[in-house]
Amino acid sequence: MTDRQTSPAAAPAPSAVSSPGPDPVAASASRDPVVGMIGAGQLARMTCQAAPSLGIRLRVLAAAPDESAAQVCAQTRLGDYRSLPDLLDFAAGCDVVTFDHEHVPGTHLRALEQAGVAVRPGSAALRHAQDKQALRDRLAGLGVACPRFAPAGSLAEVISFADGAGWPVVLKAVTGGYDGRGVWVCESPAQAAGALETGVKLIAEERVDFDRELAVLVARSPSGQAAVYPVVQTVQRDGICREVLAPAPGLAQPLAVEAQRLGIAIAAELGVTGLLAVELFEARGALLVNELAMRPHNSGHWTIEGARTSQFEQHLRAVIDLPLGAPALAAPGAVMVNVLGGADPGLRSRLVHVMAADPGVKVHLYGKAVRPGRKVGHVTVLGDDMADLADRARRAASYLSSGTDEQRH
Amino acid sequence: MTDRQTSPAAAPAPSAVSSPGPDPVAASASRDPVVGMIGAGQLARMTCQAAPSLGIRLRVLAAAPDESAAQVCAQTRLGDYRSLPDLLDFAAGCDVVTFDHEHVPGTHLRALEQAGVAVRPGSAALRHAQDKQALRDRLAGLGVACPRFAPAGSLAEVISFADGAGWPVVLKAVTGGYDGRGVWVCESPAQAAGALETGVKLIAEERVDFDRELAVLVARSPSGQAAVYPVVQTVQRDGICREVLAPAPGLAQPLAVEAQRLGIAIAAELGVTGLLAVELFEARGALLVNELAMRPHNSGHWTIEGARTSQFEQHLRAVIDLPLGAPALAAPGAVMVNVLGGADPGLRSRLVHVMAADPGVKVHLYGKAVRPGRKVGHVTVLGDDMADLADRARRAASYLSSGTDEQRH
Repeated sequence: MTDRQTSPAAAPAPSAVSSPGPDPVAASASRDPVVGMIGAGQLARMTCQAAPSLGIRLRVLAAAPDESAAQVCAQTRLGDYRSLPDLLDFAAGCDVVTFDHEHVPGTHLRALEQAGVAVRPGSAALRHAQDKQALRDRLAGLGVACPRFAPAGSLAEVISFADGAGWPVVLKAVTGGYDGRGVWVCESPAQAAGALETGVKLIAEERVDFDRELAVLVARSPSGQAAVYPVVQTVQRDGICREVLAPAPGLAQPLAVEAQRLGIAIAAELGVTGLLAVELFEARGALLVNELAMRPHNSGHWTIEGARTSQFEQHLRAVIDLPLGAPALAAPGAVMVNVLGGADPGLRSRLVHVMAADPGVKVHLYGKAVRPGRKVGHVTVLGDDMADLADRARRAASYLSSGTDEQRH
Repeated sequence: MTDRQTSPAAAPAPSAVSSPGPDPVAASASRDPVVGMIGAGQLARMTCQAAPSLGIRLRVLAAAPDESAAQVCAQTRLGDYRSLPDLLDFAAGCDVVTFDHEHVPGTHLRALEQAGVAVRPGSAALRHAQDKQALRDRLAGLGVACPRFAPAGSLAEVISFADGAGWPVVLKAVTGGYDGRGVWVCESPAQAAGALETGVKLIAEERVDFDRELAVLVARSPSGQAAVYPVVQTVQRDGICREVLAPAPGLAQPLAVEAQRLGIAIAAELGVTGLLAVELFEARGALLVNELAMRPHNSGHWTIEGARTSQFEQHLRAVIDLPLGAPALAAPGAVMVNVLGGADPGLRSRLVHVMAADPGVKVHLYGKAVRPGRKVGHVTVLGDDMADLADRARRAASYLSSGTDEQRH
């Protein structure tokens, strides 16, 4: 074997080509690497839980000391991700900077890279998770199947698009949307006009009559190694991920392979470093790409217990260019259900009942104040009977949310 | 179901009977409980990784800011576990106080309890993990099979003991020993005299001609719920745990059941709250109790990936009186091998090779400076062929230790 400094794995990252110095991670092989994560939500919190095993010092940039990850991170820095000086301060002393969300302005990302910071994923890749128009243009250029789309700068453009694609038309904010925010499903020109009045830059997409939603999670390292998890089924309600079934039940093998191939190809084409989550529609036996995210993703929470390598460990391995871990299933199946805030904030007092009722449920709380509809935790159940796993996970999540065993649909 | 405040699970802890107030955890059901762990070694570090999922704020008492757990804990307090004022300061604001080691003086533990602190395990239980004479006396009183033993206050006492038990005689420090320290295997009166000259209070035990060493890990909560993990085989060298095979290969079912029954009985009899690790000798088809520990234990590190509930999560659930998690295996088998420091401190530069060679190896680094023979991490491999798992885990640990694939025996 070759030494770390000279191995292919230590080649400069595509995202750090403009960096004047040597690979910062390889150069620091004798001390613990410092990874800075911008954002301090639950994704950063769970990354904090994974980092110590790898000997990584994780630093998070939080807006407030009570944010989800700030509660548990030994190296919380307070600052504003929209401020370049704050970002530069934060990056100083970090070997790599990565993200809990995709809201850092592209101009700031490029400025960090110009300053020699190893930003992973880099700005050129991350742009496709930030800008839906750029994503659609790029995927179309690559020949990847997507919903039909068009710019929606005016009502005339929307109506013209609907003439071909039909109503309803899905209008999406080109930047800044998440968890159902920034999405308008418009049944008519009048409704489209309402969305246009917000003044937000929009893209129009056909509403796909899908059979179900799938997701595939890929990790890719700066040296180009990739690892892909089994394809999962996701269940969304009101634009929010509610459930994930891993692996996707009954998925035809050719489609599963196609989804994984798509994920790996998109990660490579876009030069992603770290995780890439590809959200897909399965419709009439074909796959269409819906959204991308370049960070740990809700569709991968099941991997904490359900895969040999959790997505949080995998993201860290990828961004510091360690060899990737095995993405194989650790159980025949896993079901993850999100815990949304209910009307009663007393989640903590219900935890004891959930744990007493089912000692096999894995509960993950995010330390977030309970507000109706807010993701405040998730539960995962592992085993071999997917219907039973889903039932147990739904009951636990529902009880944590609302104190009843009934799922609210 | 009943409310948390009135459920049986919220009954006062045996260890907190002298507390004047209500159960502190139950009383704080509306906010995140704070658990204070005294000590900041790797056990506290791995407990820090488990706590966020349960919504627990973990606080550690460290001697220095660079200790293993202090590096990753958001609420590190610096202080001396031998100082009662430091302990009282630390306990203020903690709902429960627990331990990474058993070295806190018993007088201080009792003083904390008198001050109303929920100490788990309590001083009355913990005494048996701190004082080998008290342990032997108590186990003998319970009729638990142990190696023959006697006080060893003088050479005459040792010789008299050896007249019955034979040489070699194992002399052990009554308090303070761990990882092989405080143990003298004496082949002759002259060697015993040397151990006696240290002035340490000693107990004499027969050297058991065992077939192998086993361990059983039990969790017990203040309300009396118990959960027991599968019995494991441990391999010790120079008094240090080197390997753990879970479950113990080829262990006869009646012996496995007997070991689990013993663990549960000892936990109940001693009033343990939290984890109890019972180290056993298997000799000629029978079991003898060697040592006890009342905290997460090296013999349980495999549970992080290998059991449905890790020992670190289980300890936290137990000490705050949450219902215990399922202790079932998450894979047919698991092998854990400790990574000991070698001559070359460049462990970090070897990590990449270990990960590249075997993507299924789970590496856990402790953030400790490498010194020869010091536990600096561990690796775990899961699967169904124990010989293959052991081979892979040994190779990975050996390479991390020394840069060679050969195990040093």
